[in-house]
Amino acid sequence: MSLMLQEIREQPAALERTIQAEQKKIEKLGKFLIERDINLIVIVARGSSDNAALLGRYLFEITTGIPVSLCAPSVFTLYKANLKLNRALVIGVSQSGEGVDINTVLESAKNSGAFTIGITNQANSSMTKIADETLLTHAGLEKSVAATKTYTGQMLHFYLLAAALSGSESVYKKIPQFCETALRLESEVKELVQRYVFMENCVVVGRGLNYGNSYELALKLMETCYVVAERFSSADFFHGPLAIIERRFPVILFAPQGVTKQSSIDLLTRLNELHADSFSITNDQTIASLSGRALRMPPEIDEFLSPIPFIIPAQLFAAHLAEAKGINADAPRSLSKVTITV
Amino acid sequence: MSLMLQEIREQPAALERTIQAEQKKIEKLGKFLIERDINLIVIVARGSSDNAALLGRYLFEITTGIPVSLCAPSVFTLYKANLKLNRALVIGVSQSGEGVDINTVLESAKNSGAFTIGITNQANSSMTKIADETLLTHAGLEKSVAATKTYTGQMLHFYLLAAALSGSESVYKKIPQFCETALRLESEVKELVQRYVFMENCVVVGRGLNYGNSYELALKLMETCYVVAERFSSADFFHGPLAIIERRFPVILFAPQGVTKQSSIDLLTRLNELHADSFSITNDQTIASLSGRALRMPPEIDEFLSPIPFIIPAQLFAAHLAEAKGINADAPRSLSKVTITV
Repeated sequence: MSLMLQEIREQPAALERTIQAEQKKIEKLGKFLIERDINLIVIVARGSSDNAALLGRYLFEITTGIPVSLCAPSVFTLYKANLKLNRALVIGVSQSGEGVDINTVLESAKNSGAFTIGITNQANSSMTKIADETLLTHAGLEKSVAATKTYTGQMLHFYLLAAALSGSESVYKKIPQFCETALRLESEVKELVQRYVFMENCVVVGRGLNYGNSYELALKLMETCYVVAERFSSADFFHGPLAIIERRFPVILFAPQGVTKQSSIDLLTRLNELHADSFSITNDQTIASLSGRALRMPPEIDEFLSPIPFIIPAQLFAAHLAEAKGINADAPRSLSKVTITV
Repeated sequence: MSLMLQEIREQPAALERTIQAEQKKIEKLGKFLIERDINLIVIVARGSSDNAALLGRYLFEITTGIPVSLCAPSVFTLYKANLKLNRALVIGVSQSGEGVDINTVLESAKNSGAFTIGITNQANSSMTKIADETLLTHAGLEKSVAATKTYTGQMLHFYLLAAALSGSESVYKKIPQFCETALRLESEVKELVQRYVFMENCVVVGRGLNYGNSYELALKLMETCYVVAERFSSADFFHGPLAIIERRFPVILFAPQGVTKQSSIDLLTRLNELHADSFSITNDQTIASLSGRALRMPPEIDEFLSPIPFIIPAQLFAAHLAEAKGINADAPRSLSKVTITV
């Protein structure tokens, strides 16, 4: 069994550990930040961590009303700009804590008077030395090149912090159990991937809170299955990219119940007219019936809590598809675990 | 000749008209906004306009130090969030001025106390009625479904506004002439596209100020050539997507001289090791010599001013490739000119 598959299965326990270890601290941190009256949240990350940041963006804006800027690191590293961040909260996200560009942004933001947080899986990394506060993902060492348990751990921290900043209830406590349930789809996924062994291109669609998941599954499919995977929100997809869809073109959707449901139905209806090949991860009956294939998630998962449990079958899909394609998911060609960019 | 090609050629004149008609007004607007002491710029757009917004993000942050947030419209339209935007400048960008989601965000932002600007090509659109101030792209009616002259017109407005907000010189005045020069590459492009007639996938790479151009060329290739075109910054590309590159995989780069040069060189070196097929739009000798194919832009174009002239050969490439592939670029399958999403 691949390390990637092992690490996917470790997620419910890792998420539970993170809640236990970090909840109290983050509640205090939230109070401190509310007093500080921050007016902007900046999130800086790359790769899977940046996909987790996409969730953070929606969560913070929806629950706190504080605008979020997803940072372009080169503004700091290449263009040497000094941003006015004195009332900002700047959050760096890096599995290893060694992303040079991410840490450069944190340092620069600190010098501009921002309060900085590092979300990382490495307690003694460069990031923890720079950031004012560290939030650890208690995932244990991640050995697979393809991030899985650190991705969901980072997402979880955005839930914890958003709850603390908005003074709302800790509904996120249900997430580890939802993930446990999602893992039960594995045997179904293992059969399903056979159908996609010769897939070379695809589009992954997600919207709102699940937008980041569309990036993450696309990245997993690129890294571990060498599939050229595009990613869009269902809204953006209608602005041009729809033209690439022809008969049997595969489209994968994150399509939970909730506010994005109509958007998923509209897209699936159009895709069916174009005879595209659709596959949804969904907990909605109508969406499932409109989809060529569906992986059914429990209906009791509210859209607000769907992103973490919904990525689990997607991770399983990528890991098993890699195996079915005869690729070692743990050692993707051309990649290494820690990527240094400036 | 396609409408798209005609409209590509109209760009120098359209840009010149926009400078003449809008410069004075925007200088005044800049002074007003400086007095208002805005602390955040939010840009909201979809499709090509959103790709122009990517340039706006870098320009504003680099020249003014004011942080920029690229808006996720669904935060407003689906999740009904009320963002704290009382000291923000919120800029909507829409060719038609009829993007429902964009206009919804402008209205909501106005209610939150933000100052709003609409950048549009339609003087009597819904957007102009909502926004506090309108900046018109004087492109004339855009008949082709694929946006070209409105895209560069929108980009130009970001230059005008960034200069006004930072009190810097109007260096953008050189842009129409640079575009005129870029158009002279057309016969070379027309020959070059023959080599790509059977291209089905590709990756487009740009970084910093040219990051938006990588999205825009990818969108043009999807819309008008049905090529599955990925888009990345050269930094993000190393975080996973590199694994999809195999022998002869086509990668297209926007690679000007300047601060992003080393990043382009590093990527090309790696791509050459992997025997990828590379093609650069560049005004740098080293980058051209490392690239499989190169379209050479004038060396006197500074990186800061490169995004508008550099998209011209890319637009020509998409338009001529469509023709070579036997596709009518003016009538892409499945698309219409105005896209309504909520």
